[in-house]
Amino acid sequence: MEIAIPLFDRFTALDAVGPYEVLSRLPGARVRFLAAEAGPVRTENGMLAITADERLSALPEPDVLMVPGGFGTRALMSDEPMLDWIRHAHARSRWTTSVCTGSLLLAAAGVLDGLQATSHWMVLDALADYGAQPLSQRVVQQGKVITAAGVSAGIDMALTLAAQIAGEDVAQAIQLGIEYDPEPPFAAGSPGSAPERIVSLVQRASAQFA
Amino acid sequence: MEIAIPLFDRFTALDAVGPYEVLSRLPGARVRFLAAEAGPVRTENGMLAITADERLSALPEPDVLMVPGGFGTRALMSDEPMLDWIRHAHARSRWTTSVCTGSLLLAAAGVLDGLQATSHWMVLDALADYGAQPLSQRVVQQGKVITAAGVSAGIDMALTLAAQIAGEDVAQAIQLGIEYDPEPPFAAGSPGSAPERIVSLVQRASAQFA
Repeated sequence: MEIAIPLFDRFTALDAVGPYEVLSRLPGARVRFLAAEAGPVRTENGMLAITADERLSALPEPDVLMVPGGFGTRALMSDEPMLDWIRHAHARSRWTTSVCTGSLLLAAAGVLDGLQATSHWMVLDALADYGAQPLSQRVVQQGKVITAAGVSAGIDMALTLAAQIAGEDVAQAIQLGIEYDPEPPFAAGSPGSAPERIVSLVQRASAQFA
Repeated sequence: MEIAIPLFDRFTALDAVGPYEVLSRLPGARVRFLAAEAGPVRTENGMLAITADERLSALPEPDVLMVPGGFGTRALMSDEPMLDWIRHAHARSRWTTSVCTGSLLLAAAGVLDGLQATSHWMVLDALADYGAQPLSQRVVQQGKVITAAGVSAGIDMALTLAAQIAGEDVAQAIQLGIEYDPEPPFAAGSPGSAPERIVSLVQRASAQFA
């Protein structure tokens, strides 16, 4: 099973690495990091680079497509090479998935037309501009299309997918292997649970990047 | 604030990227990925490489030391260049931290002598062989030394640390920014919560690598 994770300048590392850590443990799975050009691809802050071992064109028809998010998605919303690759891959994939603003790229490629989908809470409404039906939920599945909420939600999405690919025992074994028994130190992980002043703080900080 | 994450052949990606995703968002923080030699460093399955931008010697005295785990730690338990770097960095650090089997490297360097510490549940007892007191807990703090349990526990550890570095409001803002409101699809994330057959399954699978 070939699992393609396309990278791009200014992606968010945990969006990609959460699902990688789960899906790479599936029996017979091979995760391949791709980009427009092979080589190191940097996150939005420039502090981390993951190597894209191959160009997108090297794997036009993966079994699983997993699109991460990040500020870099904004520059790709009308990037035809990336959107064409997503469209072509999706047409033949067993599963098409995203984390965070990766769903905006799926939407821009037309993959989410008329489908319910999720994204990072700060950009959720923007999905509607591209024909999707935004749903404030951590993981949203519509047939073979699974979208996850912001950044860390990719771990939950990937475990959900792992169970459908290989069965619940395998998914649970992977969850135990990565000791995913979360104990967040605060109740601040969603705009519904976080204090209002924290939500405002994050919205103001994010506006700097807009 | 300089945050050093040392990489090594066969590290576990999420061990490093979970804390990176949290700590890189601290105001004024710079996360630097280091290794014995600069260049791409591969995970245990060979599918992912993160770039070490500098050699370990480029940053002998980081403010924060964050040691990830992975099968590759076994080859480093008597690697004097790595252990010396850890010892020297720890002697001057504000915080010394680890995820998963990264605590075995801290222990081998003598950093955990007489201290309570945690690690991946499968190797927890081995900490005692190096003078630490194993504690089955997700995050263990002893003064400036903070260790985390397996793989995904680095996110919880880093948020705990972020609150002590920059205050609870900043830590909560980061938690909301990465939408860390986990919804694991199964109750299988620890040996205490997972079904016994799943625990056996993971122990047998892991024995293949021993």
